[in-house]
Amino acid sequence: MSNDTFPNGAAWIKGEVVPIEQAAIGVTDWAVTHSDVTYDVVPVWDGAFFRLNDYLGRFEASMRAYRMDVGMDRSQIASALHDMVARSGLKQAYVAMVAARGTPRIAGSRDPRDCDNHFYAWCVPYIHVVKPEVAAAGVSLYIPDNVHRIPDQSLNQRVKNYHWGDFTAALFQAKDNGFESALLTDGHGNLAEGPGFNVFAIFGDKVVTPAQHVLHGITRRTALELCRENGFETEERALPLSELMEADEMFLTSSGGGIFPVARVNAHHFSNGAAGPKATQLRAAYYERLKQPGFRTEITY
Amino acid sequence: MSNDTFPNGAAWIKGEVVPIEQAAIGVTDWAVTHSDVTYDVVPVWDGAFFRLNDYLGRFEASMRAYRMDVGMDRSQIASALHDMVARSGLKQAYVAMVAARGTPRIAGSRDPRDCDNHFYAWCVPYIHVVKPEVAAAGVSLYIPDNVHRIPDQSLNQRVKNYHWGDFTAALFQAKDNGFESALLTDGHGNLAEGPGFNVFAIFGDKVVTPAQHVLHGITRRTALELCRENGFETEERALPLSELMEADEMFLTSSGGGIFPVARVNAHHFSNGAAGPKATQLRAAYYERLKQPGFRTEITY
Ligand SMILES: Cc1ncc(COP(=O)(O)O)c(C=O)c1O
Ligand SMILES: Cc1ncc(COP(=O)(O)O)c(C=O)c1O
Repeated sequence: MSNDTFPNGAAWIKGEVVPIEQAAIGVTDWAVTHSDVTYDVVPVWDGAFFRLNDYLGRFEASMRAYRMDVGMDRSQIASALHDMVARSGLKQAYVAMVAARGTPRIAGSRDPRDCDNHFYAWCVPYIHVVKPEVAAAGVSLYIPDNVHRIPDQSLNQRVKNYHWGDFTAALFQAKDNGFESALLTDGHGNLAEGPGFNVFAIFGDKVVTPAQHVLHGITRRTALELCRENGFETEERALPLSELMEADEMFLTSSGGGIFPVARVNAHHFSNGAAGPKATQLRAAYYERLKQPGFRTEITY
Repeated sequence: MSNDTFPNGAAWIKGEVVPIEQAAIGVTDWAVTHSDVTYDVVPVWDGAFFRLNDYLGRFEASMRAYRMDVGMDRSQIASALHDMVARSGLKQAYVAMVAARGTPRIAGSRDPRDCDNHFYAWCVPYIHVVKPEVAAAGVSLYIPDNVHRIPDQSLNQRVKNYHWGDFTAALFQAKDNGFESALLTDGHGNLAEGPGFNVFAIFGDKVVTPAQHVLHGITRRTALELCRENGFETEERALPLSELMEADEMFLTSSGGGIFPVARVNAHHFSNGAAGPKATQLRAAYYERLKQPGFRTEITY
């Protein structure tokens, strides 16, 4: 094996590590034609996976929910991810693991039980869902009134999925209107989530985050823990938009960058249109947590 | 160029026709990671495209709705499809044309406007959404009570899309319970559609088909035309499940096989649990229509 690294990223496909540019999936795979696929994304920070077992546990739960069997157990998946990242040479990375439905063993079958599921993974340099300089100033979010989050009744949003059509439609509106990103409601006046992140509101020493029609993010979990450690009460429940407008501060959470203060939602400004002090403090606490040995699985490059 | 045909199918990618087994898309393409993709499927019957311009027109409308530009006009797309099918040698084919968002020109961008969109196509031997022998006996459909069609408010279902998570969850339930396929409601007691087909109910000399939360299928259009030519009144509107249970007959429509009589929905039987006579007659009329020169675009093999 050569010692070349893959600075643009790498992929693990059928036991081989290849440069990211060569990683492809068949156009008839149901992962493509039915978006019949679940995935997870674990961050690598300073040469270690963060909370690896929590991400792997969520990924396994997602595969069970979709009744997929990729024929690999947790330790095999972990070592595939490890080998891939080590080979890439990336010390700060966005690492995706994917379970795809595949194609039916019987040509023309429409029965998902007839498909051979398969696993692949890929990694690229660390992605910030919002750029750090934008995060420092506070993020602006646009809530469209004509696009709502795909509801749990149609698609269980606790299973991490690629059904992003609602987000994409909302992002076009957000970008056209000069906002950094978008935020969706459930269509009944409650907040849901945005493209790649959960949302939190701070009221005094209490934080509230939506419970339904959202992924239960691992960074959401980290933020809930950090909030409690910092003396906040935490509530996971429906968060009406009208209540959000009364919040002192607001923030986002994502494995792609941690905790991001929000300065503005539509015409409404939080903390005078700047990043709020409490959210900014939580953002710093997240970066401290990334360094704590108990949360890290070191990679041998 | 060799004269080998591709009996398993072929694909057109960046101007090249390749065997279907070689057709792949990058794992980081937003078509995969955001299901940010629209497509259409035109049938080839006895060596000719059926209603080609209607399918191409819908595909163009879908690309406009998603603000995609693949840099090809209608005649360029038509000739790509023609060359691919001719080269495959397939006389009866399922022909997919796909517009994919692509990846951002700027690494790490989350803005869909930064992506280079692209076109590809593929064809495989003709697919019957329900096998002809099952169609002759009448299809059985299962309506789950805990999964609803992704609503128009989350995803415009008039744009043909790969967001099939609701269908897949419903199909597992249908297959586990011994049904041929699944049918989804809108969560408010009205019918929507199933995995790959629209639905119709026949009441005397009137047919009704849902208007919302559904693709406006080209076969739905053909069926509406055939119904009117055969003396039926047609209505496109909300169709409550309670009303469906009063129907004389029911049928499905899909480019994958035309018109299919339905014998059973959950515990309810139509036409004594057999294919109804009117739906069976419409099924035959569809196969006649496939042969009519005015609807055909002949392929030069
Ligand atoms: C829809 C959605 N919600 C929330 C999140 C945040 O989850 P996590 O903190 O696990 O990254 C993501 C991450 O990509 C997401 O895609
Ligand atoms: C969701 C859905 N509805 C309806 C249809 C039927 O549309 P058409 O008659 O154009 O094939 C399809 C076709 O695949 C479909 O995927």
